[in-house]
Amino acid sequence: MPVETLRWTDGGLELIDQTKLPGELTYLTCRTPEDVHDALRRLVVRGAPAIGVASAYGLLLGLKDKRELPKADFAAALGETAEYLKTARPTAVNLFWAIDRMLAAAEAAGELEAPGLYAVLESEADAICEEDRESCRLLGRFGAELLKDGDTVLTHCNAGALATVDYGTALGVVYAAVESGKQISVYADETRPLLQGARLTAWELGESGVPVTLICDDMVATSMAQGRIDAVVVGADRIAANGDTANKIGTLGVAILAQYYLVPFYIAAPLSTVDFGAATGESIPIEERSPDEVRGFGGQATAPDGVDVYNPAFDVTPAHMINAIITDRGVARPPLEESLAALGKEDG
Amino acid sequence: MPVETLRWTDGGLELIDQTKLPGELTYLTCRTPEDVHDALRRLVVRGAPAIGVASAYGLLLGLKDKRELPKADFAAALGETAEYLKTARPTAVNLFWAIDRMLAAAEAAGELEAPGLYAVLESEADAICEEDRESCRLLGRFGAELLKDGDTVLTHCNAGALATVDYGTALGVVYAAVESGKQISVYADETRPLLQGARLTAWELGESGVPVTLICDDMVATSMAQGRIDAVVVGADRIAANGDTANKIGTLGVAILAQYYLVPFYIAAPLSTVDFGAATGESIPIEERSPDEVRGFGGQATAPDGVDVYNPAFDVTPAHMINAIITDRGVARPPLEESLAALGKEDG
Repeated sequence: MPVETLRWTDGGLELIDQTKLPGELTYLTCRTPEDVHDALRRLVVRGAPAIGVASAYGLLLGLKDKRELPKADFAAALGETAEYLKTARPTAVNLFWAIDRMLAAAEAAGELEAPGLYAVLESEADAICEEDRESCRLLGRFGAELLKDGDTVLTHCNAGALATVDYGTALGVVYAAVESGKQISVYADETRPLLQGARLTAWELGESGVPVTLICDDMVATSMAQGRIDAVVVGADRIAANGDTANKIGTLGVAILAQYYLVPFYIAAPLSTVDFGAATGESIPIEERSPDEVRGFGGQATAPDGVDVYNPAFDVTPAHMINAIITDRGVARPPLEESLAALGKEDG
Repeated sequence: MPVETLRWTDGGLELIDQTKLPGELTYLTCRTPEDVHDALRRLVVRGAPAIGVASAYGLLLGLKDKRELPKADFAAALGETAEYLKTARPTAVNLFWAIDRMLAAAEAAGELEAPGLYAVLESEADAICEEDRESCRLLGRFGAELLKDGDTVLTHCNAGALATVDYGTALGVVYAAVESGKQISVYADETRPLLQGARLTAWELGESGVPVTLICDDMVATSMAQGRIDAVVVGADRIAANGDTANKIGTLGVAILAQYYLVPFYIAAPLSTVDFGAATGESIPIEERSPDEVRGFGGQATAPDGVDVYNPAFDVTPAHMINAIITDRGVARPPLEESLAALGKEDG
């Protein structure tokens, strides 16, 4: 039922321009790695899984017209484009994961010439894309078990179809619960400064026919106090080995409120979001973005010119506040360090 | 150092039009009770103490051209205008308190004819106004004792000069601490949906030369986690006898986060904000405002057309989360029910 966020065509990588939502549903075509880099920076495409898939195709865009080159030149272009794309966003691990996976595929096919290597890379990108579709659906079915008929789920930011290829992680859980016959409604908080909750989550749930109520970020506490929320489900940009989770700024506050009001707090993310190289959340780099995002919205100033701003794009929720991490390989329960490691091992 | 939010002149009640800030500093002149009612509804003037003062003068505006009437007609106009003005905003107790005080002054001067009654009412409104100036300064000095040199104070919404006649309650504490020689900086969260933190608090602190950093509401948790906040000081719209405090939506969430991170959480409000008739926060009516406030900002849509919205304007912070209530009669410490009652008794 949800929307198709990105698609790979002969013309390039087509992306829903999420900066235009909810006013306008238009696709933007990226034809070069620079186009993809810019789309990632400007959040035309966002959400950790979608960032991974878009960057894999972005790599291909840098190699498309290099297929006739000698193998060494092709390999050099591959390395340069990979390094360049990795500079687009620092926090989402899926960006690095997808590009490293593309490089590993090229490495494994080392005996091939450029045209053969390109073909291998294209099928690897397609595989990453296809696996995202599949992993969202798997994750959704695992997560749906945690929701009861009649539940109201609070979500922060957008971890929906628009954050993946076409189904979503946190909202994938909602979609899967609805598909299994449960009545689920959603409270979406608006998620300042970029309002992904208001602009994207409220829009995509509306398109999908799931009842949604929009609140401001500072209305979460009173909504929980009044018993309006049965569970919180959010996505993740990077999960440390111990379960500490970096996600959109504001997630930490929601987690503390959920803990206070005894509302279960769930993370929904494919296992590829777990960075087993990061022992705890402390080693996850947090992107800071432009003060102008906080000083206004849509060209409208909402604060005095030049006022000092602190604008971290993500925060880290400690593992002990998380009741479960819902992955495409199963549900990790506390102690998260052990259960994530076990899922990682099964995954090979 | 701060601004003058309202002034009573021969032409009427002049109010800074706070809907135009921070872009434009203009005064709007109210000439009738309807003008004042509309200014209260549209938040041209807001903040519990300023609402009280504005409504007292609003009552005068309804009587200005009735001074030649027979006493009974004057009294009828007084009663009708009072009832009408009380419908402007339901939560701030100062509205009811100021109007009831005006009615009591008229009652006490019952033997006078209309011109004499009008004069009594005008001097009562002036007294309410003058007492607000004074009580903010008293409150500020009591509260300044709670801040240490070098502290960074988080405040939510605007309980500054713009919420009173000219000095502020929560920001009065900051101004008084600065005047006493302490270095104080402020984190202002923007306070959706109407952005009083971004538009008003950041503006007025900037005008006053107090260092201010603007954050979004969903950045409070991470700011506290990083040790950026030493104390929280906010205002109040109505305080129940047990200390439960209704204040701008979002205050409750900030209080829970402060409790979690062991940051002291203070309410700053004149004793007239305490509603000794309300035993607990449960009996405080909470205003719900238009969904359009949440669906956009400044004419810019930020959410899908017609999306369902929950938009409570206030929330109630339980007394047990409050480290102290700073009043113009002294600082009430837990147990708040007893200490507020003691201050109330001293106040007569």
